[in-house]
Amino acid sequence: MNVAVAGSQSLSAPLRDGDLLAAIDLGSNSFHMVVARYMLGQLRIVDRLREMVRLAEGLDDKGGLDPVVRQRALECLARFGQRIRDIPPHRVRAIATNTVRRLAAPQAFLEPAEAALGHGIEVVSGREEARLVYLGVAHAQPPKPDQLRLVIDIGGGSTECIIGSGFEAIERESLQVGCVASTRRFFGNGRLSAKKWKAALTEVTAEFQQFTGPFRALGWDEALGASGTAKAIGAICAGMSLTKGAVTAEALPQVRERLLQATRIRDIDLPGLSEERKPVIAGGLLVLEAAFAALGLQRMAVSKAALREGVLYDMVGRASEDDPRASSVAALMQRYAIDGDQAARVERTALRLFDQVADAWKLSLDDRLMLTWAARIHELGLTIAHSQYHVHGAYILENSDIAGFSRQEQQFLAALVRTHRRRIPKSAFNALPDRLVDPAVRTATLLRIAVLLHRAHEAQDIPELKATASDGRLAIKLPRPWLESRPLLRADLEGEPQDLQAVGIELDIRPR
Amino acid sequence: MNVAVAGSQSLSAPLRDGDLLAAIDLGSNSFHMVVARYMLGQLRIVDRLREMVRLAEGLDDKGGLDPVVRQRALECLARFGQRIRDIPPHRVRAIATNTVRRLAAPQAFLEPAEAALGHGIEVVSGREEARLVYLGVAHAQPPKPDQLRLVIDIGGGSTECIIGSGFEAIERESLQVGCVASTRRFFGNGRLSAKKWKAALTEVTAEFQQFTGPFRALGWDEALGASGTAKAIGAICAGMSLTKGAVTAEALPQVRERLLQATRIRDIDLPGLSEERKPVIAGGLLVLEAAFAALGLQRMAVSKAALREGVLYDMVGRASEDDPRASSVAALMQRYAIDGDQAARVERTALRLFDQVADAWKLSLDDRLMLTWAARIHELGLTIAHSQYHVHGAYILENSDIAGFSRQEQQFLAALVRTHRRRIPKSAFNALPDRLVDPAVRTATLLRIAVLLHRAHEAQDIPELKATASDGRLAIKLPRPWLESRPLLRADLEGEPQDLQAVGIELDIRPR
Repeated sequence: MNVAVAGSQSLSAPLRDGDLLAAIDLGSNSFHMVVARYMLGQLRIVDRLREMVRLAEGLDDKGGLDPVVRQRALECLARFGQRIRDIPPHRVRAIATNTVRRLAAPQAFLEPAEAALGHGIEVVSGREEARLVYLGVAHAQPPKPDQLRLVIDIGGGSTECIIGSGFEAIERESLQVGCVASTRRFFGNGRLSAKKWKAALTEVTAEFQQFTGPFRALGWDEALGASGTAKAIGAICAGMSLTKGAVTAEALPQVRERLLQATRIRDIDLPGLSEERKPVIAGGLLVLEAAFAALGLQRMAVSKAALREGVLYDMVGRASEDDPRASSVAALMQRYAIDGDQAARVERTALRLFDQVADAWKLSLDDRLMLTWAARIHELGLTIAHSQYHVHGAYILENSDIAGFSRQEQQFLAALVRTHRRRIPKSAFNALPDRLVDPAVRTATLLRIAVLLHRAHEAQDIPELKATASDGRLAIKLPRPWLESRPLLRADLEGEPQDLQAVGIELDIRPR
Repeated sequence: MNVAVAGSQSLSAPLRDGDLLAAIDLGSNSFHMVVARYMLGQLRIVDRLREMVRLAEGLDDKGGLDPVVRQRALECLARFGQRIRDIPPHRVRAIATNTVRRLAAPQAFLEPAEAALGHGIEVVSGREEARLVYLGVAHAQPPKPDQLRLVIDIGGGSTECIIGSGFEAIERESLQVGCVASTRRFFGNGRLSAKKWKAALTEVTAEFQQFTGPFRALGWDEALGASGTAKAIGAICAGMSLTKGAVTAEALPQVRERLLQATRIRDIDLPGLSEERKPVIAGGLLVLEAAFAALGLQRMAVSKAALREGVLYDMVGRASEDDPRASSVAALMQRYAIDGDQAARVERTALRLFDQVADAWKLSLDDRLMLTWAARIHELGLTIAHSQYHVHGAYILENSDIAGFSRQEQQFLAALVRTHRRRIPKSAFNALPDRLVDPAVRTATLLRIAVLLHRAHEAQDIPELKATASDGRLAIKLPRPWLESRPLLRADLEGEPQDLQAVGIELDIRPR
């Protein structure tokens, strides 16, 4: 590994005692930031920031974002940005969830948001969000050995339900119902009634029922609620002296009855409820009541931790030997019956090329990881069909929920798999944010060449492979006798410079 | 099962001694028809027809078909159609291969072709073609137990390579090189030369090398060639007294040298070569030489059987307990980890509905099979992601090479999976030939309702389910107390009539 790569910013460099990490969660209701110090394998939270941006309030039916809400979000991110200025960028991870997932043009929001924060922002899928929530809760309150735990996180725009054991999520689901969105959907005019409540409860319970079958079949020993809604309702239960802070099937109808004594949201009067939470408590309580009904829940304790703590612990995992993404890639290799020998040959050659040009091409350790994983699964689509298998593989990577990966990371992998053979469509890199296009095109180039060199499936590694690069140029030298004894490879290589022109790479490949 | 269904035409009705079967193969070089009589589990060929239509000659770069060639094809099919007039339609199967696969608008050819033949024509994928070729060869010359056999079928437009054991294909590949297409591609001006030959051989060998790795790794005990090109070259080898009819690595260069003594295709002079075969022997020999080189072949015997015999034996398999399509569906269920209990519940309910309306809706036993299989795999896409899983499942079914299924049958299944939940896009049935649209829409409707009724994943079957249908109308009655105790199901069912309007079905679902 050369110096530039080793010194570059990466989430994958090992953590040292005293290192600071920060996680930022651009939730649909609140934006959160949590800063922690790594010490002896543990994280100690040293700072928390929270602003109720209510991003979901700004989302319209067509996936547009209200300019006032957008401005509120950008100002919050600028304040968060000040706080992380002194933390190394590779120790910061910012995650956007449901509302950003639903924007028609997420980049139009993400680019100014990244500028305001001074850091890249990644979108995660609902099921990945679920995994991270579970991880955060499990680290804050470690579950008893051999027990199954249900975690429910009612956010502003979506609700995540997870059953896990230890630090591992087993079942993960994400539902398009949240406290902000449900308040808007069912009580948009600010008026409450028992009749409206009943109809809304039927609808939301039906949405939960889509997945409760497998959840109930698996079962759980204890249930925990994460995030603001669960905390607020726990506090109300305590405020009404119904429980000591937990939420129970007995207490919920009493809280609901008390809430419905108000006929308008602004008149809601519940002990323990903050003014800030009042505008979204109706939707939050509705979703929680539906969850209790659909899952047959009796009692739910409240966790202090949530998504952001999960993101912190995931960063610790990524910096360790047990990067959860590596396990996911191994699982994909198994499910899609990938030829591991060929994948390993391509990986070795791709990384040999990478390590020689990473410096000149400004590629990071993260890019190296992406190249490694893309090499391992580039033949993924063969399970579907040989014809167009690169397209099928990219389809799977774009559309699957792959544990540990953000949406952008999946799109990065998908772009590499999509372009590893045949003509390169310009659109292949369109889904990526601008900052990732160059690294993706360059690692894709290296993967293509590695695949080409191994097309004959020879068992031996390529001898003396020399690569040099400058901005839009890549020169590769191969031993003359080796190349000359492979006329078919030479024929293949002849077409390659033209294919790479499509992405602005000038390739010079020749014997030495 | 009601009378109309049991009496309808289906490939799946059991065969009886004396039954006639016919297979028609619309190949890229020749069209073949073979008629056989079923007797004591065996087939005895009673008639063969062959016409060298050279369909591939008419294919242009844009996937268009030359009108002269098209006319030639239709006239041939009309003649074939006369011969099968007295054979029950469900005992006839007509298969189109590479050239039709490559047409830009296959339906524009298939519709008049079906009219001329008086029978439906199915397109099969290259890998399914490979499976059928292997099956035909294996039945004509049963392989020795525990031996692996390589079969190569050089067609007009594509070449199929298979390694199999017994009657089962293990490795199957299909390559876009054939005797008609390669003659046009490399010797299009009718001129031959050793230099052109060498360059062409490098190119075609490289195409074979894409898959020879796994083939050579698996190995084989004997090699057989099927179809016209292999037969013709075997006859030339014998005519030149090089072998007794097999093709060998020693003989091939001598045949090529003799062929290249001519500088024009029309002057080719080879002992044992028919006038009819002469225009395409150059491409055929080139492909065979490339196959020998890429696979390191020493000797290849010539088989009398090919695709059409495979189609006949596949019909026997479909009519037996071992329909190869049922095994493929089981393999998909396993690969994609489908919840078998839920699939079985949906299947039972879908078939209960089917058996009540098949008569009124003119549905066949084949439609019943499609519904059965679609029910088993409707949750296929969940492996990719919960969100839009019906779309992912349809993607897999449209793009996979699924052994035993024709392209149209896969599209039928894909349409059922695509439309089993959420809004029904009009385009979902576009890929199907007109004659299959009504059956597909109707079975899709039954699957949707079965899935809806089982959405809560209850273990019990639905009690007393009454269905009646007329042309564009379906009425379903459910027991009132059962329905009334399920408010969520009632809410779901309310939206269903509107969704079904999109495909012209008027649904009336109510308690009784």
